[in-house]
Amino acid sequence: MKFYYAPKTIALASHITLEEAGAKYDLHKVDFSQNEQRSADFLRINPKGRVPALETEHGILTETPAILVYLAQAYARAQLGPIDDFFAFARLQEFNAYLASTVHVAHAHRVRGKRWVDDEAAIEALQTKVAENMTECFRLIEEQYFTGPWVLGEHYSVCDPYLFTIGLWLEGDGVNLDDFPRLAEHSAQVRKRPATERVLPLHDIQ
Amino acid sequence: MKFYYAPKTIALASHITLEEAGAKYDLHKVDFSQNEQRSADFLRINPKGRVPALETEHGILTETPAILVYLAQAYARAQLGPIDDFFAFARLQEFNAYLASTVHVAHAHRVRGKRWVDDEAAIEALQTKVAENMTECFRLIEEQYFTGPWVLGEHYSVCDPYLFTIGLWLEGDGVNLDDFPRLAEHSAQVRKRPATERVLPLHDIQ
Repeated sequence: MKFYYAPKTIALASHITLEEAGAKYDLHKVDFSQNEQRSADFLRINPKGRVPALETEHGILTETPAILVYLAQAYARAQLGPIDDFFAFARLQEFNAYLASTVHVAHAHRVRGKRWVDDEAAIEALQTKVAENMTECFRLIEEQYFTGPWVLGEHYSVCDPYLFTIGLWLEGDGVNLDDFPRLAEHSAQVRKRPATERVLPLHDIQ
Repeated sequence: MKFYYAPKTIALASHITLEEAGAKYDLHKVDFSQNEQRSADFLRINPKGRVPALETEHGILTETPAILVYLAQAYARAQLGPIDDFFAFARLQEFNAYLASTVHVAHAHRVRGKRWVDDEAAIEALQTKVAENMTECFRLIEEQYFTGPWVLGEHYSVCDPYLFTIGLWLEGDGVNLDDFPRLAEHSAQVRKRPATERVLPLHDIQ
């Protein structure tokens, strides 16, 4: 397999999961500073011009929730999610879908406002509500969706590196993760895992 | 089961899927005109204050991609997706994740701008880019991700009512579905299915 990523993006969640799975893969760092994600070569890999992308023997996969579940299924022995119990699996999917379509999107309004508007004043206006929205999302996760000690309860799953990755963005968003004590402790526990420790330096994260 | 929905929302995709699955369920229409989605009673059903929500014997599920896959797995005999082939399943997930986190979000900037900004001028500015973004999304789907005659190829799946539902929003977004001939034909085919025909009137769609 070949994994396309860029530092400090959501690709970190899949990258940690590749390590947790014990997968063998090559790495390709997409150079955002040179806008490589919009190059003709990369658009043949992912026509959306984004990371992550995972080249497998069957074809190229994109979208974090799809890659995470694919890895949990393809490396079932690593036990990265309750893939044989379809209601428990639906809970995993529900959590990941919320991160992908609400929480990640709320954050993106600080750094990627030009996706949705051209006007400079409006791009700045979007940035002003990000801390409030991310606070609301993390409060909801802490109070309603986080079981503990891992997201889904007693067992680590692909939800954990996904939540961990978005949690790393909070400081830049003007939110203090320590305001959510259960999630702060969770972040510390994910960070300590050998798979996470191996990957973080490649994402320029100490 | 009990299905919580509101007309002209993304709940339509799950509603059609319930019918395709042959599921037995009761309906609860959430009255958005009375802001019922923010009522204390409804927030106990879905703390996010959104539809759809599906009350099952195991608990309440939210998030369209999670509900769709849950139904495909729980009603496997209805054959609503390649749930036993994990790369084919990853393709289904990739498609649904793109709809949830990019396409639906692009549309939402026309009608739900206040989620991301308070400033009235900025809310109006967001509306001006929606047609361009939805055009780009549907072009990408038509050219790269739609196999035909159904989204994933020869077999109907949960991806089909999901794409159909978002396609219904294009006209309001200032985009003509007929500019995407394969997707326009797909929409016509989904609309003709008995499950779709039974559900559309409940969503005030002719």
